[in-house]
Amino acid sequence: MQSPICAMLGIEFPLLAFSHCRDVVVAVSKAGGMGVFGAASLPAERLEEELAWIDEHIGGRPYGVDLIVPNSFAGKGDGPAGPAQVPDAHRKFTAGLLEQHGVDAAGLSEAMAGRQSFGDNMHADGAAKLLEVAFRHPIALIANALGVPPQLMLDLGKRHGVPVAALVGTRDHALTQVRAGVDILVVAGGEAGGHCGEVATMVLVPEVAAAVEAVGATTPILAAGGIVTGRQMAAAMAMGAHGAWTGSVWLTTAEAETNPIVKEKMLAASSRDTVRSKSRTGKPSRQLRSPWTDAWEVEGAPKPLPMPLQSLVSEPALRKIDKLSEGGHEGAKALATYWVGQGVGLMNEAMGAGQVVQEFKEDWIAACERLNGFIGE
Amino acid sequence: MQSPICAMLGIEFPLLAFSHCRDVVVAVSKAGGMGVFGAASLPAERLEEELAWIDEHIGGRPYGVDLIVPNSFAGKGDGPAGPAQVPDAHRKFTAGLLEQHGVDAAGLSEAMAGRQSFGDNMHADGAAKLLEVAFRHPIALIANALGVPPQLMLDLGKRHGVPVAALVGTRDHALTQVRAGVDILVVAGGEAGGHCGEVATMVLVPEVAAAVEAVGATTPILAAGGIVTGRQMAAAMAMGAHGAWTGSVWLTTAEAETNPIVKEKMLAASSRDTVRSKSRTGKPSRQLRSPWTDAWEVEGAPKPLPMPLQSLVSEPALRKIDKLSEGGHEGAKALATYWVGQGVGLMNEAMGAGQVVQEFKEDWIAACERLNGFIGE
Repeated sequence: MQSPICAMLGIEFPLLAFSHCRDVVVAVSKAGGMGVFGAASLPAERLEEELAWIDEHIGGRPYGVDLIVPNSFAGKGDGPAGPAQVPDAHRKFTAGLLEQHGVDAAGLSEAMAGRQSFGDNMHADGAAKLLEVAFRHPIALIANALGVPPQLMLDLGKRHGVPVAALVGTRDHALTQVRAGVDILVVAGGEAGGHCGEVATMVLVPEVAAAVEAVGATTPILAAGGIVTGRQMAAAMAMGAHGAWTGSVWLTTAEAETNPIVKEKMLAASSRDTVRSKSRTGKPSRQLRSPWTDAWEVEGAPKPLPMPLQSLVSEPALRKIDKLSEGGHEGAKALATYWVGQGVGLMNEAMGAGQVVQEFKEDWIAACERLNGFIGE
Repeated sequence: MQSPICAMLGIEFPLLAFSHCRDVVVAVSKAGGMGVFGAASLPAERLEEELAWIDEHIGGRPYGVDLIVPNSFAGKGDGPAGPAQVPDAHRKFTAGLLEQHGVDAAGLSEAMAGRQSFGDNMHADGAAKLLEVAFRHPIALIANALGVPPQLMLDLGKRHGVPVAALVGTRDHALTQVRAGVDILVVAGGEAGGHCGEVATMVLVPEVAAAVEAVGATTPILAAGGIVTGRQMAAAMAMGAHGAWTGSVWLTTAEAETNPIVKEKMLAASSRDTVRSKSRTGKPSRQLRSPWTDAWEVEGAPKPLPMPLQSLVSEPALRKIDKLSEGGHEGAKALATYWVGQGVGLMNEAMGAGQVVQEFKEDWIAACERLNGFIGE
């Protein structure tokens, strides 16, 4: 496809697949798109293992790595955030919520203490270690999922000839990123799964494209937010994007390690079954609605802690819920949730990741033909 | 253009323009799109005058009429909602908010009493009067902006050979409308100005298109929500829509009677400067943010009343604010607001309504060419 994204990344079809699952990364890259491995919560040694596995299986196809280094934390050097900073109210609320659903809340505090690496990764030192690992591998893209990438990431990208991508949810942030020197903008609408802003993809993509053009920049744009089909990808590209960045659609693929209970819920969900809430990470992120997410929205629920502390509250509990739900525990099955965008309403069939890429291509072409058909003779 | 919408409505370009301003309706229809006159808050005699004026000036081009007849009110016959049902807390809050901004709050209660017609129109009797007026004129479309159209509207449409359109914000509502026998679905994403749901246009349009197809229906779809340019219209049509329904983009045209202060604010606004709130009508509607809308979102503000009572609270105050702001009153200028979608971020230049239609056409073609350009040779 004639897109600057294809030229820049050495791929055939400008469809990028964000996934925490290495098998998805490999399958998408092999099918002509590009897998981007989400490394945010991994310790450096684990990232090394995962990337080595990818190198071994991907047959030389390009792939990327995605980190979360929030600008407001990176390099502040005020020491990693830890369990000691989690108030009792949050511990009690979480334990109470689990117990209401028949889930034993014992051991949550210990699990919280074991979650240090995510908080560490959010700081300059932790992020630097991950970057060092990533650049030891033949990555074709490095992405930062939150805010302006730290200078170290931009410098390493330049030095290794690896494009740096950054996620933005507003026009102004996009311009800040362009000025900072990022190579690719991932423009994510509020319908996206995970961290997201409030402006919808349909508005944000043309708004950012116009703003980038107005400052004389040529930074290519990957549209994100709600995109789970080729027709939506084509729509975004008609509005000024040069490709698509996707996440949710891979969660229900055969390769994905998504909790099978959550997979089932996602395949059954409509576009209304998500909520944008701070309750998982401390920043607004879109998730599948469940009694877990509902409880945090009720008046009187504790206010989510700032990132990265809220993850120390939510992740150990949600891990426990995942484990029990897979074993058939009814309360845990009800509570189980994961990040997903509104596009979940269009995800109705489980298939392999390579097949998803193929369907995107066919649907893209069909959408283009549909549009041409309106002009007629 | 080869769209079922063009065939059904007898127009050249499937761009529908919702406006409370008859000049906009005429200009859009004359330029090849179709103006739809928003009659919601008018008494029947005023609607008669407006439509007579349109008939005189539109040169035989097709136009439509849009009413708001919420299904949950229509025909209930429990008497019109009136000022007596507005609690003191709401009156005091509104008066206090105005006074904080140096706006004299005297006369609000009297103005409230004069706002009876909107409440009346929401009931079966009031709506029937408006329908009677509308069908006396050569309308080419009748639309209901909220919920399933009352049976009377569907019957009159059929009898007069006038297609009936209905606005939907969810897949399930769309299917309900199809079963009820509407001729055109207006599928409105949460980025829309005015009443709107939560699902974004990028997701809702393909979701509804797929659902309609799955039940074997062929009801054409107008995409709405955030669409203020031809490239967005093309995007929606690539995803399964057959045209676009627009509102916000006409508010800043030369013909529109929008408060000039609000026009200026809209032209300067970014896509982040709107809020979805119940504070204007009692149902969630998207508006330009101002200290007025902010005040209703603060903890401790009175909960908006159910429709149509909240309009009795908000409209007299906002009318007063509009009038004073046009006279240069600084407090009123700050408070002034109106319904608008996130697309306001792409509305940066005032122009005539006919020129907007022309720009839509050119931008549509350019978007189609952009998409084809990705395929290359």
